[in-house]
Amino acid sequence: MRAAMEAEAVASELCSGHGRAYLDGLVVDGKPVCECNTCFGGPDCSLFSPDCAADVDSGNPLFLEPFWMQNAASSAVLVAGWHRMGYQVNDQAHISTELEKHIRKLHSVVGNAVTEKRFIVFGAGSSQLLNAAVHALSQDKSTSPAGVVVTFPFYPAYKEQTEFFRSNDYKFLGDAALWKNASDANVNIIEFVTSPNNPDGQLMKAAVQGDYAKAIYDHAYFWPHFTAIPAPADEDLMIFTLSKLTGHAGSRFGWALLKNETVYQRMAAYVYENSVGVSQDTQLVALKLLQVVLQGNGGDFFDFGSTTMRSRWETLREALSVSNRFSIQEIEPQYCSFFRQVRVTSPAFAWLKCKRDEDEDCYTVLKTAGIIGRQGTAFGGGSRYVRLSLIKTQDDFDLLMRKINALVSDERVDSKQVEDHNQP
Amino acid sequence: MRAAMEAEAVASELCSGHGRAYLDGLVVDGKPVCECNTCFGGPDCSLFSPDCAADVDSGNPLFLEPFWMQNAASSAVLVAGWHRMGYQVNDQAHISTELEKHIRKLHSVVGNAVTEKRFIVFGAGSSQLLNAAVHALSQDKSTSPAGVVVTFPFYPAYKEQTEFFRSNDYKFLGDAALWKNASDANVNIIEFVTSPNNPDGQLMKAAVQGDYAKAIYDHAYFWPHFTAIPAPADEDLMIFTLSKLTGHAGSRFGWALLKNETVYQRMAAYVYENSVGVSQDTQLVALKLLQVVLQGNGGDFFDFGSTTMRSRWETLREALSVSNRFSIQEIEPQYCSFFRQVRVTSPAFAWLKCKRDEDEDCYTVLKTAGIIGRQGTAFGGGSRYVRLSLIKTQDDFDLLMRKINALVSDERVDSKQVEDHNQP
Repeated sequence: MRAAMEAEAVASELCSGHGRAYLDGLVVDGKPVCECNTCFGGPDCSLFSPDCAADVDSGNPLFLEPFWMQNAASSAVLVAGWHRMGYQVNDQAHISTELEKHIRKLHSVVGNAVTEKRFIVFGAGSSQLLNAAVHALSQDKSTSPAGVVVTFPFYPAYKEQTEFFRSNDYKFLGDAALWKNASDANVNIIEFVTSPNNPDGQLMKAAVQGDYAKAIYDHAYFWPHFTAIPAPADEDLMIFTLSKLTGHAGSRFGWALLKNETVYQRMAAYVYENSVGVSQDTQLVALKLLQVVLQGNGGDFFDFGSTTMRSRWETLREALSVSNRFSIQEIEPQYCSFFRQVRVTSPAFAWLKCKRDEDEDCYTVLKTAGIIGRQGTAFGGGSRYVRLSLIKTQDDFDLLMRKINALVSDERVDSKQVEDHNQP
Repeated sequence: MRAAMEAEAVASELCSGHGRAYLDGLVVDGKPVCECNTCFGGPDCSLFSPDCAADVDSGNPLFLEPFWMQNAASSAVLVAGWHRMGYQVNDQAHISTELEKHIRKLHSVVGNAVTEKRFIVFGAGSSQLLNAAVHALSQDKSTSPAGVVVTFPFYPAYKEQTEFFRSNDYKFLGDAALWKNASDANVNIIEFVTSPNNPDGQLMKAAVQGDYAKAIYDHAYFWPHFTAIPAPADEDLMIFTLSKLTGHAGSRFGWALLKNETVYQRMAAYVYENSVGVSQDTQLVALKLLQVVLQGNGGDFFDFGSTTMRSRWETLREALSVSNRFSIQEIEPQYCSFFRQVRVTSPAFAWLKCKRDEDEDCYTVLKTAGIIGRQGTAFGGGSRYVRLSLIKTQDDFDLLMRKINALVSDERVDSKQVEDHNQP
């Protein structure tokens, strides 16, 4: 109880709505120190630095934080000092049965994945599971290392991670398109398929087909706040993460749904050798969060998430509608079986293109204007593209829009001047 | 508050002292289901199966669970639904500043490690850090993969893990003794030094010295409940884990203390690529646990731990003192700077030897007598040895002693019969 009260006291600390104080944050003179949003400062985060750049580089999913603050009472969880101290739950499985049940129920309610007769492996975020999957799929006997491929533009962590661990069993080969008809090349292909895609939000299918190819479906963004859900995904190997579902990136929790028992055992072995399973504290927190998400069959939660994302997209689309200099990706509206209506999608990222001939280095164009995105080249997408994260705090988004509006406004002044100049 | 009450209700569920019910356990007819200790069953864990084997295989550190139950009020922590949702704390470091401070303070209070001017990396248990360390130390330029070596008997995870990840950069080479004078072999050596050693509890130093050799000191058991602390350890690369300090193996939290900044950056990069840091929920729990440990400068906590372990060792030593068939390791008493007295050690494991000629397969001898240990051969220690875990629940230990007493009693009956038979 004391712990509960302590937590509430910290939570009630005022940071002007532009920051937060945590139980494990710094304490000065007996008072918790506010951790401010980017571009806000001062003891209560009320000082705004207007010249500060809009940092929309990372995919930090803080757009959902207000939902959890509004639902603080139902989503808080008390971890006892003696909570699941041992290594094992359910013999060797290291995973919580109740959490597994809730995950299956969530997929069934949302309708985004088939879970019947599927094995589940938990991981420390999807990151750990991505490499566990590459490991598992690369263990089939072959004379040469398996080749890991992607369709451009792609999430750069696949390449980084695959290369970082320097395994004898796999190597990164790049563009999937080059391996579409490679069954004679004596190399097994492992394809990362991100659907919806990061950076551009498109729903994707594996490019390489055939006995020699296996796909890892990264469904991090396959949730109703980002995309229409046309039908339940039913792939052999699918990976999901709490980070982009509930926004709890800091908790490091992900899961894989698997059809094949051997692949399941190999991935479970990887997680065991790597970290002896996933934190029991995290599993307890994840269970509580999913219980809240599932209240009212996900209605409140996904309404909040998709309302926020759609509002941001509307604002962004409207601002850019008068621009000839910048464009963003178009995704066809689709029927969403969760919301039971045709939906305009609202992906986590804008994939912005600089259209002017002289703006070939789009990242620098934006940076000069006070917008820090992620370079299109990082995704194999070309220097005319920049990824802008739309899932950070409202402050981050507001600042982004302030900078974008200024850019578009300059553009109109420029073109007005050109018009004036061209008049006889 | 509701969460707190919910937790207390679950905690107060009675499982006869032979089990526990958790917040995230199964619920039947609205009541949480007891999870019973090994060999106990029934709805309230009161049914004891006397024929059930004593399972002392794993190093599950549940001997500390009663301490945390006794300190339930001070050790519980409320995790808010909006607790540190983002990927990052303190820029790229992903680690809690307060937790880092507490770790340094703990080492200073216990006197078991120098932390001044040391970098700290957090990991998902020491497991993740062990391989991160091998990775970090293997990145120095060399024509061939680095060789990973150990002194026998050794903790088998080093070999398993090193081989599992199939890296181009390192391979397991086995016995350190063979590499003591190998500076001409053009291979960099990475030596795992476990001190106190698992399985036998001896304090250890690196066997291989020289420019071509680097050591990973695994100090999992270097705490006052297991060993005398002669002086603060001051090695280049030292790894500790919450599992064997507070008993929270399920939380998956460990840390490395590092002198070298490049090694620090490589290990941090490994943890980032592998799992994007360590769960914030776990970091919050770890902070609370260390705050409790540090109350009264660690006195209460380490008194509880060492009293429990010493009592178990006394019981075990006494039972075996009349045996000619079995022996256990002897470790010289040493001055412990934490307790400020000469201390008999009380390691986590008994390293038991079968002395009779016919008992060459000691594991099977014990198994037949209802004791499941871990085979000496798993540690490279020979089949006459078996590791017995002394850090599981009191029930596990009591059952072990019941079986050992029966074995020793049989032995005395046997020798009495031999004596009778030998009489003229």
